[in-house]
Amino acid sequence: MDTKAYIENLGKKAAAAKYEAAVLSDEKKNEALNSIADALLSNCEYILSENKKDIEAGRSNGMPEAMIDRLSLSEERIEGMAQGVRDIAKLKDPVGEVLNTVTRPNGLIIKKVRVPMGVIGIIFESRPNVTSDAAAICLKAGSAVILRGGKDAINSNTAIVKVMRKALKECNLNENLICFVEDTSRESSGELMRLKKYVDLLIPRGGAGLINNVLENAKVPVIQTGTGNCHAYVDREADFGMALDIIFNAKTSRVSVCNALESVVIHKDIAGEFLPLMVKKLKEKDVEIVGDEIAKGICPEIAAASDEDYYTEYLGYKLSVKTVDSAPEAIEWINEHSTMHSEVIITDNEQTATLFLTQVDSSSVYHNASTRFTDGGEFGLGAEIGISTQKLHARGPMGIEEITSYKYVIYGNGQVR
Amino acid sequence: MDTKAYIENLGKKAAAAKYEAAVLSDEKKNEALNSIADALLSNCEYILSENKKDIEAGRSNGMPEAMIDRLSLSEERIEGMAQGVRDIAKLKDPVGEVLNTVTRPNGLIIKKVRVPMGVIGIIFESRPNVTSDAAAICLKAGSAVILRGGKDAINSNTAIVKVMRKALKECNLNENLICFVEDTSRESSGELMRLKKYVDLLIPRGGAGLINNVLENAKVPVIQTGTGNCHAYVDREADFGMALDIIFNAKTSRVSVCNALESVVIHKDIAGEFLPLMVKKLKEKDVEIVGDEIAKGICPEIAAASDEDYYTEYLGYKLSVKTVDSAPEAIEWINEHSTMHSEVIITDNEQTATLFLTQVDSSSVYHNASTRFTDGGEFGLGAEIGISTQKLHARGPMGIEEITSYKYVIYGNGQVR
Repeated sequence: MDTKAYIENLGKKAAAAKYEAAVLSDEKKNEALNSIADALLSNCEYILSENKKDIEAGRSNGMPEAMIDRLSLSEERIEGMAQGVRDIAKLKDPVGEVLNTVTRPNGLIIKKVRVPMGVIGIIFESRPNVTSDAAAICLKAGSAVILRGGKDAINSNTAIVKVMRKALKECNLNENLICFVEDTSRESSGELMRLKKYVDLLIPRGGAGLINNVLENAKVPVIQTGTGNCHAYVDREADFGMALDIIFNAKTSRVSVCNALESVVIHKDIAGEFLPLMVKKLKEKDVEIVGDEIAKGICPEIAAASDEDYYTEYLGYKLSVKTVDSAPEAIEWINEHSTMHSEVIITDNEQTATLFLTQVDSSSVYHNASTRFTDGGEFGLGAEIGISTQKLHARGPMGIEEITSYKYVIYGNGQVR
Repeated sequence: MDTKAYIENLGKKAAAAKYEAAVLSDEKKNEALNSIADALLSNCEYILSENKKDIEAGRSNGMPEAMIDRLSLSEERIEGMAQGVRDIAKLKDPVGEVLNTVTRPNGLIIKKVRVPMGVIGIIFESRPNVTSDAAAICLKAGSAVILRGGKDAINSNTAIVKVMRKALKECNLNENLICFVEDTSRESSGELMRLKKYVDLLIPRGGAGLINNVLENAKVPVIQTGTGNCHAYVDREADFGMALDIIFNAKTSRVSVCNALESVVIHKDIAGEFLPLMVKKLKEKDVEIVGDEIAKGICPEIAAASDEDYYTEYLGYKLSVKTVDSAPEAIEWINEHSTMHSEVIITDNEQTATLFLTQVDSSSVYHNASTRFTDGGEFGLGAEIGISTQKLHARGPMGIEEITSYKYVIYGNGQVR
């Protein structure tokens, strides 16, 4: 079978399963999720042996250690995956919730009801734990899922999916609630992006390259996730100690994540005093700093920033600095350069804070707190399938409700118009 | 200026205006909307004289009378447009509504706040009243709008936009809250669909050709609207009188609209009795009926339906008929052939109704009422910018809330993670 026919066939199977998914009781879904968790644990050895194949292939292809680490499973990580699936089972079932009821003058009763999305496609990269996470959250949300993971993790993902599908079968459920793309060619993700007939929503999870490829080529509805060129604006009226703590935490606590800080915008009035403190603090973690002429003038340790620097999500120990004359200038700068993920203002002035929070056009805007909190768990959503950086449908951390839709159910007794 | 640069420039202007739009008070927006309504009335003659040019051009190009009618304005229609704008002013301002507040154990206060979409692009066809409607609803929703109307209505649309922009200016507002694409080349709509840097949402309003062109080529987020291959399923336990009334109303009360009925699915047990009654009733309006072998066998007036017939939105006095053995078969048939717009089951059996309402995957599913009610006004939304047939973001009739987004605003006092 060629790739196009293969993906279409997979879509057809998932679409058939979605009708079953939509009417599953919460009890049945939870039974299935707990069985999946049990199965992950009882098949731990098998999954680890398949994972080993991927790691060996990665090593022999010269994969960097940071990526090997993301790819690697261990007993502990598999326990974490199983626990993650159990945690998703505990969430409130979103399906069937009546969001609104209106009775019209003509007697029609119009209910707006939360319904599953249908078939959700997930294209992701090398972390095999996404396989169980994404499948579990989609199942709980009443949707069938088509998982298309990266080539690097193909053995691990295949094993995890096999275990999950077997668990579904043992619960007398349709295995195709969880579909998996075994073909990891570039073509297979392309076909999935164009599978309009069967895919109701596609979520890419990965780096800027993957996201841009999906945005460029998808014909199915997409939620753009992930890239975060996050900014902190240190206002003229900032508490310096707080600003230093927030910047240090947001930049260095985990550099490879999308909610990490990439750029600091500083009011000129305080730059002379604040920048040297910041440079000193960030030196503890060897953070490389680039900046504009004024910043460079204040701290000789700061190198020149290029235009491109200000558009770059470093995901590493590097930070750009920009000085501004005012809060409105900071806001304008951030709206031009950010990826609409997370931005923070550090100030004691409530009015300036309100201006920033209102006018900065990002999914999550903070007053006096680290951008690292933009996360489903930290927001109390219980689970997260990604962080949306678009304005359509869902914004910021997406939990289980964010991957549902709604429909109108209208009850009449013969009304005509 | 070439088309690409022209559209980019327009996008830039709209994007600059969106920050002003986002912070306008409800009072100011209503003042602007009422001024626009006044201006439409006081410039009635000017608008009508420009509209006359379009009508003359249409006539000399052999435009069909139905389209001439859609294109034509009159004093009465302009009064209707002005009233529409005033009605939108009366709606509740959606911007700034706090949808949810959570206080986290670490003291962070996380508010989910309704915010404007930003820049909304609308591509529409020949009805000039869409110009004022769409501009007004976007303004009330706190967004800047880029209107790109059809070539046929260019003089009418240009005049209406000119009047509206002048009214904005007289209220000391940025004219670019309402931007208009004067270039009606195919290229200009193509560039607008790709204007990722500036357009937050694109809504196409028009026929299947326009919608498909947008879905095929857009790189900006889109809400798919409009096409409605609507079905009625007449169950074995249907009240015949009610079924006849609903089918007659849904098929013939206005054939050119997306919520009109296009296909009837009938349970075989009652087809022999019901079909002749239906054929007789629809003959009053000379409705052409095509159907499958069984339907043809029952009524010789029914011609053979092709496969394509069942996928066709006729938008005219034509109807397809399909016979089925059961409600589940009807549901499967409808899910395969519908455009997920509006479908109705006519039955006295509550259980069968529930099955249908749950399993039919359309935006609006009815029990015992005409599909013609799928409409923002009929649903009580106050205004409507289109009817979404996708599952992402908004479904069914879209009112003012449906063209907003949300963001998370997080208040801290130095929290780090």
